Amino acid sequence: MEIIGLKLPMIKEGDDLAQIILSVLENIDLALEDDDIVLVTEKIVSKSQGRLVDLETVVPTVEAKKLADATEKDPRIVELILQESREIVLTGPNFIITETLDGFVCANAGIDSSNVVEGKVKLLPLDPDRAAEDIRRKIEKTLGKHIGVVISDSFGRPFRLGSVGVAIGASGLTTLWDRRGETDLYGRTLESTRVAVADCIASAVNLVTGDGSEGIPVAVIKGLKFTGTGRALDLIREKEEDKFR
Amino acid sequence: MEIIGLKLPMIKEGDDLAQIILSVLENIDLALEDDDIVLVTEKIVSKSQGRLVDLETVVPTVEAKKLADATEKDPRIVELILQESREIVLTGPNFIITETLDGFVCANAGIDSSNVVEGKVKLLPLDPDRAAEDIRRKIEKTLGKHIGVVISDSFGRPFRLGSVGVAIGASGLTTLWDRRGETDLYGRTLESTRVAVADCIASAVNLVTGDGSEGIPVAVIKGLKFTGTGRALDLIREKEEDKFR
Repeated sequence: MEIIGLKLPMIKEGDDLAQIILSVLENIDLALEDDDIVLVTEKIVSKSQGRLVDLETVVPTVEAKKLADATEKDPRIVELILQESREIVLTGPNFIITETLDGFVCANAGIDSSNVVEGKVKLLPLDPDRAAEDIRRKIEKTLGKHIGVVISDSFGRPFRLGSVGVAIGASGLTTLWDRRGETDLYGRTLESTRVAVADCIASAVNLVTGDGSEGIPVAVIKGLKFTGTGRALDLIREKEEDKFR
Repeated sequence: MEIIGLKLPMIKEGDDLAQIILSVLENIDLALEDDDIVLVTEKIVSKSQGRLVDLETVVPTVEAKKLADATEKDPRIVELILQESREIVLTGPNFIITETLDGFVCANAGIDSSNVVEGKVKLLPLDPDRAAEDIRRKIEKTLGKHIGVVISDSFGRPFRLGSVGVAIGASGLTTLWDRRGETDLYGRTLESTRVAVADCIASAVNLVTGDGSEGIPVAVIKGLKFTGTGRALDLIREKEEDKFR
């Protein structure tokens, strides 16, 4: 397995990410083969979708102001968090954890003010599974190879410190590797039967992209065989089945 | 960044893992360089430490029997879980999540019955940070290179389905990459300031080792620069700072 980071030009609203990735691949003379996976950090997907919001334009509701007071956060950012969320999971001093409209449980609904210009914040991409599919189809059409695409973010988590990679969009690969029914070296049934492949890929690439802030927002992963039809949504544990909610 | 999986012979109690890894590297003519990281799945560390328990020898206490009834689990396994834990975090039908003696929050105290002979179960390695250090020192002494060693397991997690890699032991590398004070592409302070490097490494290798059950219990990672003095314990979020406990 090999991971090659790609440097891209600064991305702006309306940019065609697939086209830009194809140009960079051509420039550095890197050929994609069947089963290769292209990982794209969510920052540039959001930027290409124009998901930057000027905080000056945000008018917080009473509810947002109240939560901002309680959490000591900017009421305009809290307003955006509420707009981007379908449920508040947990709040406290300087943190708000919600379930986003797409179902991801994370801090601040994934809203980020790093790597964007002063006075603006960046929302998560719209429908990231669809965005991954679009990028995949365009690249496949041009190259005639079957590839996978993962759109990654990095989230904190309970019990452990530090952020890890998380797949928020995916197309063309198995995202949750279901090994139920397989046997181990001794012919016994496997206990750990599902592997979050797309999250492991996102974490692997996190080591190369440095959380997207090194100007390496894309990476190519070679040497894996996870061709499939999974989506990032397959990795979401439903609230009713979650013992920690 | 490149990951190369290594096939090892079956490991038994008393085996010198560093020596065996060095032999395999020599056989396949793979040279380690400074900053390379050797990842070892916990299964073989446990086996080399003789951490297999014959269930016939386990006598459950009243407490274990009670919890076994409530969770519909084998009382002998519940007894071992309690012995290996310092706190019960959450229990329910067929699951017990505890904090282990080493501080890891996971299901069944990491006790596993796959990849071991029938009638036995495998406990987590004793003092995995120390075990990683031992392996690192022996390999470094022989090769004269500075390497990192990570001992990995795979855990489930709240909010998301499927298991991901987790570092339970580490030596010779930065495990938690603290980026506080660094700035982004626009000179703004980074928001996501700590990256769980060793967990990302464990997840990356999970894709190659297939959760340790493919007979590939060791991997070499080349191309990263995380030389440091971190330990896996650095990645544990203290209970008092954990909003989900």
